[in-house]
Amino acid sequence: MYQSILNEIYDSVQPLIGQGPVASYIPRLASVPADKFGMAVQTVEGSLYQIGDAEEAFSIQSISKIFVFALALKHAEDEIWRRVGREPSGRPFNSLVQLEYENGVPRNPFINSGAFVVTDIVMSFTRDAKRRLLELVRMLADNREIQYDYEVARSEAAHGHRNAALANFLKSYSNLRCEVESVLDTYFTHCSLAMSCVDLARASLFLANGGCVPWHDGAIIRPEQAKGVNALLMTCGTYDEAGDFAYRVGLPGKSGVGGGIVAIVPGHASVVVWSPGLTPGGNSLAGIRALELFTALTGLSLF
Amino acid sequence: MYQSILNEIYDSVQPLIGQGPVASYIPRLASVPADKFGMAVQTVEGSLYQIGDAEEAFSIQSISKIFVFALALKHAEDEIWRRVGREPSGRPFNSLVQLEYENGVPRNPFINSGAFVVTDIVMSFTRDAKRRLLELVRMLADNREIQYDYEVARSEAAHGHRNAALANFLKSYSNLRCEVESVLDTYFTHCSLAMSCVDLARASLFLANGGCVPWHDGAIIRPEQAKGVNALLMTCGTYDEAGDFAYRVGLPGKSGVGGGIVAIVPGHASVVVWSPGLTPGGNSLAGIRALELFTALTGLSLF
Amino acid sequence: MYQSILNEIYDSVQPLIGQGPVASYIPRLASVPADKFGMAVQTVEGSLYQIGDAEEAFSIQSISKIFVFALALKHAEDEIWRRVGREPSGRPFNSLVQLEYENGVPRNPFINSGAFVVTDIVMSFTRDAKRRLLELVRMLADNREIQYDYEVARSEAAHGHRNAALANFLKSYSNLRCEVESVLDTYFTHCSLAMSCVDLARASLFLANGGCVPWHDGAIIRPEQAKGVNALLMTCGTYDEAGDFAYRVGLPGKSGVGGGIVAIVPGHASVVVWSPGLTPGGNSLAGIRALELFTALTGLSLF
Amino acid sequence: MYQSILNEIYDSVQPLIGQGPVASYIPRLASVPADKFGMAVQTVEGSLYQIGDAEEAFSIQSISKIFVFALALKHAEDEIWRRVGREPSGRPFNSLVQLEYENGVPRNPFINSGAFVVTDIVMSFTRDAKRRLLELVRMLADNREIQYDYEVARSEAAHGHRNAALANFLKSYSNLRCEVESVLDTYFTHCSLAMSCVDLARASLFLANGGCVPWHDGAIIRPEQAKGVNALLMTCGTYDEAGDFAYRVGLPGKSGVGGGIVAIVPGHASVVVWSPGLTPGGNSLAGIRALELFTALTGLSLF
Repeated sequence: MYQSILNEIYDSVQPLIGQGPVASYIPRLASVPADKFGMAVQTVEGSLYQIGDAEEAFSIQSISKIFVFALALKHAEDEIWRRVGREPSGRPFNSLVQLEYENGVPRNPFINSGAFVVTDIVMSFTRDAKRRLLELVRMLADNREIQYDYEVARSEAAHGHRNAALANFLKSYSNLRCEVESVLDTYFTHCSLAMSCVDLARASLFLANGGCVPWHDGAIIRPEQAKGVNALLMTCGTYDEAGDFAYRVGLPGKSGVGGGIVAIVPGHASVVVWSPGLTPGGNSLAGIRALELFTALTGLSLF
Repeated sequence: MYQSILNEIYDSVQPLIGQGPVASYIPRLASVPADKFGMAVQTVEGSLYQIGDAEEAFSIQSISKIFVFALALKHAEDEIWRRVGREPSGRPFNSLVQLEYENGVPRNPFINSGAFVVTDIVMSFTRDAKRRLLELVRMLADNREIQYDYEVARSEAAHGHRNAALANFLKSYSNLRCEVESVLDTYFTHCSLAMSCVDLARASLFLANGGCVPWHDGAIIRPEQAKGVNALLMTCGTYDEAGDFAYRVGLPGKSGVGGGIVAIVPGHASVVVWSPGLTPGGNSLAGIRALELFTALTGLSLF
Repeated sequence: MYQSILNEIYDSVQPLIGQGPVASYIPRLASVPADKFGMAVQTVEGSLYQIGDAEEAFSIQSISKIFVFALALKHAEDEIWRRVGREPSGRPFNSLVQLEYENGVPRNPFINSGAFVVTDIVMSFTRDAKRRLLELVRMLADNREIQYDYEVARSEAAHGHRNAALANFLKSYSNLRCEVESVLDTYFTHCSLAMSCVDLARASLFLANGGCVPWHDGAIIRPEQAKGVNALLMTCGTYDEAGDFAYRVGLPGKSGVGGGIVAIVPGHASVVVWSPGLTPGGNSLAGIRALELFTALTGLSLF
Repeated sequence: MYQSILNEIYDSVQPLIGQGPVASYIPRLASVPADKFGMAVQTVEGSLYQIGDAEEAFSIQSISKIFVFALALKHAEDEIWRRVGREPSGRPFNSLVQLEYENGVPRNPFINSGAFVVTDIVMSFTRDAKRRLLELVRMLADNREIQYDYEVARSEAAHGHRNAALANFLKSYSNLRCEVESVLDTYFTHCSLAMSCVDLARASLFLANGGCVPWHDGAIIRPEQAKGVNALLMTCGTYDEAGDFAYRVGLPGKSGVGGGIVAIVPGHASVVVWSPGLTPGGNSLAGIRALELFTALTGLSLF
């Protein structure tokens, strides 16, 4: 059903592939070929469509925030909303300005500071937050081969002064319980997950399906929680370009600096695209265009 | 179909009616009884449902930004996006901070500074922007009785130093073409529109209906423009509470300090609520709860 | 005594004269020849030294803030410190950001917002603040010929949207008592004073002389108030370059965008320089260098 | 000569002693008795005057910034001004906001971020910056008994998340060369210096004496550098209360959260006061009053 649409998108975005700089702050990301492009659609009925490099694993980076947040939501929702807001920040994803003016309470769970607090919450109820997340993601994607890329995680830590600034800043406001180093280590490891478009499409399907996955008994999160996650992705999922993303694509989405974007069609499907060249706001340039074409061609924009 | 749901909402929100301060910066708004509550649903099929004070006119205030924006979109879309962004501001609706850091370009058309630029654009292609908007709104609502409340407009002008600061600031960045006084006068007049929930439900139906209204030949705006407006309302329509509104209600919405909120169910209906008591962010307190119940009970959240 | 030093300075700064842009936001200032340079020293013992264009009148602009502040200090000191701070702003002279974060209280009397409040205070205790200031300045300078340049004042008003933004912003915080238009009109008129280096050196001598001028009975302000003004000029008198000015010159000083700078050697002399080319911070480029040479050659730096 | 004045000050400030909270972020500082008060004056002619607890050692904290800055100035002045500004910040001493808006360049050497850069510079030209500073301070104070208080330093490190945030932030802008941990460790050690008012009065005399101390051959810094330090202390030495300090005291000064303040009378004397209760801005409450009385009674204000 969607294969011809993916084909059409693939042709249309060719001129954009390779445009925009690839994330270069760590060597492992900088070495990813700029001309990659993959896309996958997973429907709630169980159909999978894909094109291009859709089975090639890439560094999902901030997309991992979805899965960590789902874990925290399941086990400690009240705690989250005592320590994190749910408003767009109006600033870049790694800004410290807002934290200082708002006393150390991150504006939402999908900017870096918010994700640190969410990670801290997950660490408070599980002994091994890294193993726990990996198990969740493997189960969601139905793929036991998914791994952390520890070289990426180490490299992030070595170049992560801005993130260390953010985490220490949170700690100075007593909005981290665990040690700064431990939170950062867990966060960087989560971000290093190597997954393909197909993996991610399967792993994020629960958000399109009321919190459940077909190949797993029991809900990951409750239906109204899934709605809440999608709402947050719509207003806060693509950093300081969330408004433009909503305007052009019309779906909740979460991006990572590795060039991946996950978009959700509630009740229907998850759509994942990967292309490493980035916009000034840090989102996949060809990826946003591909998703814009997707909703234009399918009429699946929520609006 | 929706009458029993409106009845249930009406009962549920009773304890909230009268909570939250009524806007008091001008006498005319301050004198509105705090215990008012009305709600109306207009479907694209033509059915109208209502409850409470749904036929009583109130000051729509910032909800007028929707209609002025639609006018500008129809005639000068390119000009808009050269002079206004489409991102949430992360600040109160009348903040000047962002303008100074971002060289006089408002973050979106639904904060005050953005609306001034949009008003300025409308004034550039029509001789009488006040009459033009009034005609549009009357046609959209199919009600020739709708009027500006000039006493409200004069009162706004007399107390509008913050807005005068914003408009002069924009002018200093050359992001207003017309005279400051003229833009403010037009803006305050637009905001003074007195309409009921029923009026507003009818007048905003075009956003749920691909840019068209059933009782009028020809589109107000194109279908993809209607999608764009809804996306902007989702991320930017309820000021610095837009994230929370999306999380709780799950619909695009636009609020005013008069206590009205318009919400759009794309393809289906417009839903309007009015209750004057406000949240700290300036949105109707009982109104948000009513809309939250509406999507919970109907399952019409987009997410 | 100082003539040979002025001669040496005059020779040294020749390469700098004409460097830096002349203020161009109003035609009258933009038309001032960039190659002007004048300097005057007036000692408390009554000697006057001068060089270059020291007798040519120029637009003193923000230097007028000294005289208006002295008037307010004499009559309503307590009122000033209830409504204005005395800290450097860390932002450009016309920034609105600080006002928003600090609830409409300007950081000091020598940024524009602070001067508006001081003007408002002066207007509250005198019926004709323009005539009152002109009389004070004529008496201080011992020159009845000093005049406002009403064309400059009108031109400022016509281009003064940034200042109108600031004044309206203050009014929205109830930190102006008079009407915005009236305060701006008075402020722009004060700024339009046309005075020469010699005029200014005489007119500012009271700050070097414990609040008194030799040619006038009675003190303008008390000795400890004169100290206070000098302290404020040191930390806040040259906008966001006050730290650099203190570092290089080592004297309290007040600059204007017309290219004038007044510097005070407490107990000893006033030193005035004029050259229209400006630094990025809005201070006279050659003027700062001239004053730096003055304290280097005379050893009169306070530090 | 000054003994009677110190006596008078001592009597006058009694009601203020114990007012204002003692720094409580680390146990060692929190345990200092609030009722301490000491004061010392050291003239360039060699006379020493003291009163109260002037010989009791306290934690000099940020006052150490003077000595580290002097070291850097002597060896790497150009490097300093490439990486640090010399303007007041208009924000609290530990604010991160300005760094983000100004690309990681601290506004001056006397806020924490600026001191980290200066420490980093000193570490780049000496193998053991801790030993080097201790030697300098012992020599300046002519007291071999002066020691670091390593318990204080360790405690600072354990509670220093805000400083760690600042240092990591600088590093993310590449404005630190050494490792973050190493810079912080050195900084905290420097701040832990335990010195008395008498020690500090002797140690800071070089700033009143053109960069030289009588009991040491050779200049610490050049005379014009000493002037520059004094200018910076005037505009930036007492955090976001520098304007008020200049207004009330009229001398360059440097404060620490341990309750000490060093003030300089150029060409004449150094004046040191210690009292642990602090103002909201983090300066000694009774100490500022004592210095205000000192210049009022002696007429030694620079203004």
